[in-house]
Amino acid sequence: MISTKKAIELISRGAEEVLIEEELKKKLDSGKRLNIKAGFDPTAPDLHLGHTVLINKLRQFQTLGHQIIFLIGDFTGMIGDPSGKSATRPPLSTGEVKENAKTYQEQIFKILDPDLTKVVFNSSWMNKMNAADLIRLASHHTVARMLERDDFDKRYKSNQPISIHEFLYPLIQGYDSIELDADVELGGTDQKFNLLVGRQLQEVHGESPQVVITMPILEGLDGSQKMSKSLGNYIGIDEPAKEMFGKIMSISDTLMWRYFELLSFKDLGEIEQYKKQVETGTNPRDIKFDLAEEIITRFHSSKSAQDAKNDFVKRFSNNAIPDVIDEIEIKVSEKGVVFANLLKEIKLVSSTSDAHRMIKQAAVKIDGERVDDGKQILREGFSAVIQVGKRKFARVKLIA
Amino acid sequence: MISTKKAIELISRGAEEVLIEEELKKKLDSGKRLNIKAGFDPTAPDLHLGHTVLINKLRQFQTLGHQIIFLIGDFTGMIGDPSGKSATRPPLSTGEVKENAKTYQEQIFKILDPDLTKVVFNSSWMNKMNAADLIRLASHHTVARMLERDDFDKRYKSNQPISIHEFLYPLIQGYDSIELDADVELGGTDQKFNLLVGRQLQEVHGESPQVVITMPILEGLDGSQKMSKSLGNYIGIDEPAKEMFGKIMSISDTLMWRYFELLSFKDLGEIEQYKKQVETGTNPRDIKFDLAEEIITRFHSSKSAQDAKNDFVKRFSNNAIPDVIDEIEIKVSEKGVVFANLLKEIKLVSSTSDAHRMIKQAAVKIDGERVDDGKQILREGFSAVIQVGKRKFARVKLIA
Repeated sequence: MISTKKAIELISRGAEEVLIEEELKKKLDSGKRLNIKAGFDPTAPDLHLGHTVLINKLRQFQTLGHQIIFLIGDFTGMIGDPSGKSATRPPLSTGEVKENAKTYQEQIFKILDPDLTKVVFNSSWMNKMNAADLIRLASHHTVARMLERDDFDKRYKSNQPISIHEFLYPLIQGYDSIELDADVELGGTDQKFNLLVGRQLQEVHGESPQVVITMPILEGLDGSQKMSKSLGNYIGIDEPAKEMFGKIMSISDTLMWRYFELLSFKDLGEIEQYKKQVETGTNPRDIKFDLAEEIITRFHSSKSAQDAKNDFVKRFSNNAIPDVIDEIEIKVSEKGVVFANLLKEIKLVSSTSDAHRMIKQAAVKIDGERVDDGKQILREGFSAVIQVGKRKFARVKLIA
Repeated sequence: MISTKKAIELISRGAEEVLIEEELKKKLDSGKRLNIKAGFDPTAPDLHLGHTVLINKLRQFQTLGHQIIFLIGDFTGMIGDPSGKSATRPPLSTGEVKENAKTYQEQIFKILDPDLTKVVFNSSWMNKMNAADLIRLASHHTVARMLERDDFDKRYKSNQPISIHEFLYPLIQGYDSIELDADVELGGTDQKFNLLVGRQLQEVHGESPQVVITMPILEGLDGSQKMSKSLGNYIGIDEPAKEMFGKIMSISDTLMWRYFELLSFKDLGEIEQYKKQVETGTNPRDIKFDLAEEIITRFHSSKSAQDAKNDFVKRFSNNAIPDVIDEIEIKVSEKGVVFANLLKEIKLVSSTSDAHRMIKQAAVKIDGERVDDGKQILREGFSAVIQVGKRKFARVKLIA
């Protein structure tokens, strides 16, 4: 048995906040198998490493012997976005939700032990809730407190409409905690408000409030913006091993330590050892190898990781690609700079005609978006990751 | 058949607002039998004349051949006040709601034709509504618009809590209009916002929006504050005929015309005639007799009205009681004034010992609340209706 102190150390690793640690201590001391809840959107089951930060934390609780409850928030997904504002969120059918859930499970069970993970759908209780129940639920929270939530506050102050049903969603998320008898709920930092609503509703309901643990948003390959598909700075957990390996090797040394903290299962002592090695002269690249191997082993296999490494070393020794994303500031006049010329200037291509050729081959991207106009003018203030082919990246900022 | 123009004149009589008159005209012109909705709280079936202003308006629609829908809002009554703040509003049982509804009907059918009145309960559709439906309903209204409602606005700005379920009630009231296919909804001026929510939801639902008619709040016997039980300035429709007669005779001449407009079924031409008579020398008291007779006939019988009048005349000619509430300003020093002394000063009693005797007999009230301490000190700023026995009233204001 691990001591409560050790357990809290493990749980706190990489976490943004633990609210309230004293309560967590009590819950751990009780010796009870705790219900650890985390909620997921049913619409986007295609996970990248950013999503796994939270799942890794669930895994830590699992290794401590607690019950993981992987909650798929399909109730609201099946209602859709009732405001009708977003055409991109049509209601999901039960079939689609099930299909997505299957994909989710295939992905998360690369990290979590399926035998120790309960997958639940909030539609199973929310579909039974009637209007009167929801009114009662809504009576336990005030408009003023809801408007304290950052995004609501901003929208209200800038006269952006907030539909009243948006006030109901955090309450439903909170109600899920009652239904699941959650002892701990995990979420991203952007979920803090909603997680606290759960605490409050549990208290109204006469239950011990859940401990809230928020996890930071993982930075993408560029090391500054959050990892996201639309920014093109992500590593998908279904990507081929070689692709993953190359991407992990492309991160900065600073970002590497962050990834160790949030993505590696190695304990902090081991990671300290790595840091000491680098201080005493080891090439950080060799440490990064270990990180890449660990992660690829998790999502593929040990053999795939080895192959990817060998392949990488072979190409790396030929100096064919940069191993980190360069961050470059370029001075531009008021007129700005033609994109193809910029590509040449930052040495992602050998000439402007090479630039145009690569663009024609659809091999050039700005923040993950394919570029088809090499003659476009970029101006002061432009800041993005530019990618040429599969392996050449540069983070460029245009300054005056 | 009455012309649309005449119908609108009748409907507009005494109304605060008709929104939108052009739409009302169209609806009347269509020749369709219109659904006229008015909602009532299931908790307080003990009506006074103030409540009948609205019911009288329903009656006018009824005489024009339209369908009256008397809606009892029992759904929320059966939930109770879920905020738990008001201990005075425990949830009503189905039995209590039915009992109250019966009392309501006995009372309103003194004004409305039972055969042409549909009495409905919103629980009959709201109990079937599920949480998902309510969320969809809530998606059609914004937080900002809801906060425009006067009372919400004031409470929000003064940091008084507003529970989120309070935002749901206007939506439910609006949904009732969809369910009932309401063409017109009537309410007090304080209901205007909620009635407009009904219009908006009907439009979202692809239906023609209801016309909203707001009726003013009737002044009580004092002629200034709204008629209300707690202010003691009311005439209950179940009060004995003699009681009613005395109270009506006690109102000021100005208030009499207001009561004619809102409580009498005589047409405006006839009322104009009365005004001319007073201008040419008729004692307003004699006109007030007609008003009292009409109202008592409505709630009791023609004979009771006659008896009450005779009784009144007999006593009135003996100068036993004042026929209007005097409004008196009394100067007080910083020390204030002893209540028993004040009673003597304003001539509601003949001596302070008379005052103490009346108080001991529980015959003295301030704003309808029984007084049991004759020695209490009243100070500058005090303003209330003081009553001694059944017929003596004075509106008193203490000034510096």
